[in-house]
Amino acid sequence: MNRILKYEDVTQFDQETDVVVAGYGGAGGCAALEARRAGSDVLLLERASGGGGSTMMSACEMYLGGSGGTRLQRDLGFADSTGNFRNYLEACFAPNVDAERMRLFTEGAAAHFDWVEALGVKYKRGCFEGRDVVALTGDSLQYTGNERAWPFTDVATPVPRGHLPADAGHEGGVRFFTALKARVEEAGVRVQCDSRVTRLIQDRSGRVCGVVARSAGQDRKVRARQGVILCCGGFIMNEAMTRRHIPELDAIATRHGNPGDMGDGILMGVAAGGQAINMGEAFVGIAHYPPPQLTFGIFVNQQAQRFVNEDVYLARLGHYAAQQPGDRICMFIDNRHFDRPAYLKVDMVAVDDSVAVLEREAGYPPGALQQTVDFYNRHAARGEDPLFHKARAWLCPLDTPPYALVSYRLSEIRPPVFTLGGLDVLPTGEVVDPERQPIPGLYAAGRTVAGIPRNSKGYASGMSVADVTFFGRLAGIQAARQPRC
Amino acid sequence: MNRILKYEDVTQFDQETDVVVAGYGGAGGCAALEARRAGSDVLLLERASGGGGSTMMSACEMYLGGSGGTRLQRDLGFADSTGNFRNYLEACFAPNVDAERMRLFTEGAAAHFDWVEALGVKYKRGCFEGRDVVALTGDSLQYTGNERAWPFTDVATPVPRGHLPADAGHEGGVRFFTALKARVEEAGVRVQCDSRVTRLIQDRSGRVCGVVARSAGQDRKVRARQGVILCCGGFIMNEAMTRRHIPELDAIATRHGNPGDMGDGILMGVAAGGQAINMGEAFVGIAHYPPPQLTFGIFVNQQAQRFVNEDVYLARLGHYAAQQPGDRICMFIDNRHFDRPAYLKVDMVAVDDSVAVLEREAGYPPGALQQTVDFYNRHAARGEDPLFHKARAWLCPLDTPPYALVSYRLSEIRPPVFTLGGLDVLPTGEVVDPERQPIPGLYAAGRTVAGIPRNSKGYASGMSVADVTFFGRLAGIQAARQPRC
Repeated sequence: MNRILKYEDVTQFDQETDVVVAGYGGAGGCAALEARRAGSDVLLLERASGGGGSTMMSACEMYLGGSGGTRLQRDLGFADSTGNFRNYLEACFAPNVDAERMRLFTEGAAAHFDWVEALGVKYKRGCFEGRDVVALTGDSLQYTGNERAWPFTDVATPVPRGHLPADAGHEGGVRFFTALKARVEEAGVRVQCDSRVTRLIQDRSGRVCGVVARSAGQDRKVRARQGVILCCGGFIMNEAMTRRHIPELDAIATRHGNPGDMGDGILMGVAAGGQAINMGEAFVGIAHYPPPQLTFGIFVNQQAQRFVNEDVYLARLGHYAAQQPGDRICMFIDNRHFDRPAYLKVDMVAVDDSVAVLEREAGYPPGALQQTVDFYNRHAARGEDPLFHKARAWLCPLDTPPYALVSYRLSEIRPPVFTLGGLDVLPTGEVVDPERQPIPGLYAAGRTVAGIPRNSKGYASGMSVADVTFFGRLAGIQAARQPRC
Repeated sequence: MNRILKYEDVTQFDQETDVVVAGYGGAGGCAALEARRAGSDVLLLERASGGGGSTMMSACEMYLGGSGGTRLQRDLGFADSTGNFRNYLEACFAPNVDAERMRLFTEGAAAHFDWVEALGVKYKRGCFEGRDVVALTGDSLQYTGNERAWPFTDVATPVPRGHLPADAGHEGGVRFFTALKARVEEAGVRVQCDSRVTRLIQDRSGRVCGVVARSAGQDRKVRARQGVILCCGGFIMNEAMTRRHIPELDAIATRHGNPGDMGDGILMGVAAGGQAINMGEAFVGIAHYPPPQLTFGIFVNQQAQRFVNEDVYLARLGHYAAQQPGDRICMFIDNRHFDRPAYLKVDMVAVDDSVAVLEREAGYPPGALQQTVDFYNRHAARGEDPLFHKARAWLCPLDTPPYALVSYRLSEIRPPVFTLGGLDVLPTGEVVDPERQPIPGLYAAGRTVAGIPRNSKGYASGMSVADVTFFGRLAGIQAARQPRC
């Protein structure tokens, strides 16, 4: 498909506006609202029959902090300096950090929370301090990532930063989007659903000055006097793209996203002269908790060696599990701590009162598993994990038979995967070419761009929604600043 | 820099030819020669003051086999079926394999050897069966990669496939290029050095119909009636690109390539509508041999755990070493097997007659190194390595004190790194857009494209030169087939 229509070939526009936003998820909604509030006429085009995107499908956790603490963090007695927030995020993604993007985000995240709350999203002044992917207690603050896990505890003071709509559980995205949509409508953004942006209109100078939108089988040409903002999601649903860019994960992935995550925004942006970066990175999550007590277990690879501290976030486990040679990851656990994981279907490889028998039945090299378990137990009894520094709270000798080996093979679990690569943009959303020169009139935000989270190793729940809404707003503001032409 | 000049903006061409080849390394030289032999008028433009590129800097090992064996393999008594060759290569790079490219290469590699020999490159009928990066015995055949190492031995019969110019040691590239250059000149290819191709000329239909070449401060416009072939090398010397695409390696790399590896071809191809793929992958090599006896040692990470069979190729070691948490890789070895590595400067962390003392001095968790060494020695004494299946020939208990821990920290070694990402092309060299539609008139080969070798984990010496010369030829043939316009 040709993703560019030349401006010279357009005889007539069917519609005209200041700013076109392509895609009505979290990023697109925030971009449209800010552009409209700044005085632009805004047309929001959505491929599906209604807005929401992946943000609405999520719990809408937002990973926010800094500035001494967001209003929610402070109300609950947590201090979080901008430096502490930044140290944590840099440890997550270094060296793959866009310094200016990181600075704007860590300095502005607390004010972003106020903005979101002012949309009408309710947050409950309660903190869930347990270990769960999404707090189901109704509380609005929780630890979501690796804050309390090594090596992050070496560089940043643990603070809960996951901000969840009140009493929403996994439904936070609906709460958030309902509020956002109401403000978008009040503000007077024109929304057209069932309208898929298929092409950018670009003039001879390289300026993007409109889009072609397909609606009910008709192509409509829309002029954008100030600019076009691509918020079309990632590419996890585009199998040709995932085969090409994340081949190792393509085969085992449960594709996590919305059906519109077809890479449209990335493909159009690249066709207009932009560059896609970080395309080989993706979130891969193994929800080894809840229940939290499974954190007492240990993961071993096909050498029966441990490879990670088990108190990490599920995407960090996913990252290291995917790296191990072979597709054989097991949890070793004893009867005292065993339970079924809440979000995963796992198979038992072997159960026995003797680790030696378990080892033999599972086909590990003689002595390998026993040695790993002995070493772990010996140190756990003293509250130590000298190999991977799992936090003391999760250290307890695994010595209550029967013992179990539980399979966490990625090819069986088929972990959720979504993409973390996309267009290279300035923090203001301007799409840049490979030499980082902006393409006039073209902006992007959301998972269409390479944002703050750039690998699974450092990802935490809430990083995507925080990033896409925060930088969606900046893109809207930036486009609305442009002269009309 | 704007990488595209619009055809409509060209008032006059300074020069005209059928095929322009940009870059006179192994790929460009072969492309030019084949296009010329097929009857095209060919202009070869080289940025440096002379041809050669990275191919000339290399030992010019070519990784070839299949078809029952190349002439050299067969003369030395080695059979190598196409299936065996393909099984090996697929195990190296799966699932990141371009099936059609792989098929053409494995079926055509033996004939490619004949073609190279017919250029006038001499090959000596001798096989070096030892373990070295480049045979220094003058022999022309050797094992260069992981052929004799697990897990490759499970899927393919080991065969030596590294084809080296006779008696050339590390100077094979000069021998090869001298022969190639003579044939290029005889054939009547026009060569212009000190001419850097900076822009592609593209018409309104998207067809590439020429280039802008900068020479002595002047821009010259060259019309290419049949096509342009980009053979400009990779991007390891372009620090903005390496920071963006291989951030983890950027900081520790010794940049391995020629000064022209600035990504010019990739940037021009992308600007013309092509797509760059595999951009996050690079070769990273830790030359832990020769001397071969170092293969008896074991590598441990900061957990004092082994993580690879030590008889692998240096780029596989590099891959796994770079993946280990932290920057702490050591070799544990005993006095019987210790020697200084030939190609690396390494520091001793500790030397002692007792493994326990060594462990303490090096700061490993108590018991961790002793356990790893005991387990290894116990099985090595029986000729077994149940964890990583190092070949029996390299298994011997490390029990002759004093013992040493030798540091292989990547940040100290600063391993050679070169890039394995580039333009997505059809096997015939046609540059394709993200939807795999060819861009008319545009071809590419060499490290400007994503070729056969796509990661460090499966790389072997000789894969680059084999790939770039083989597919350079195909690109030349394909361009020469086009109608002149």
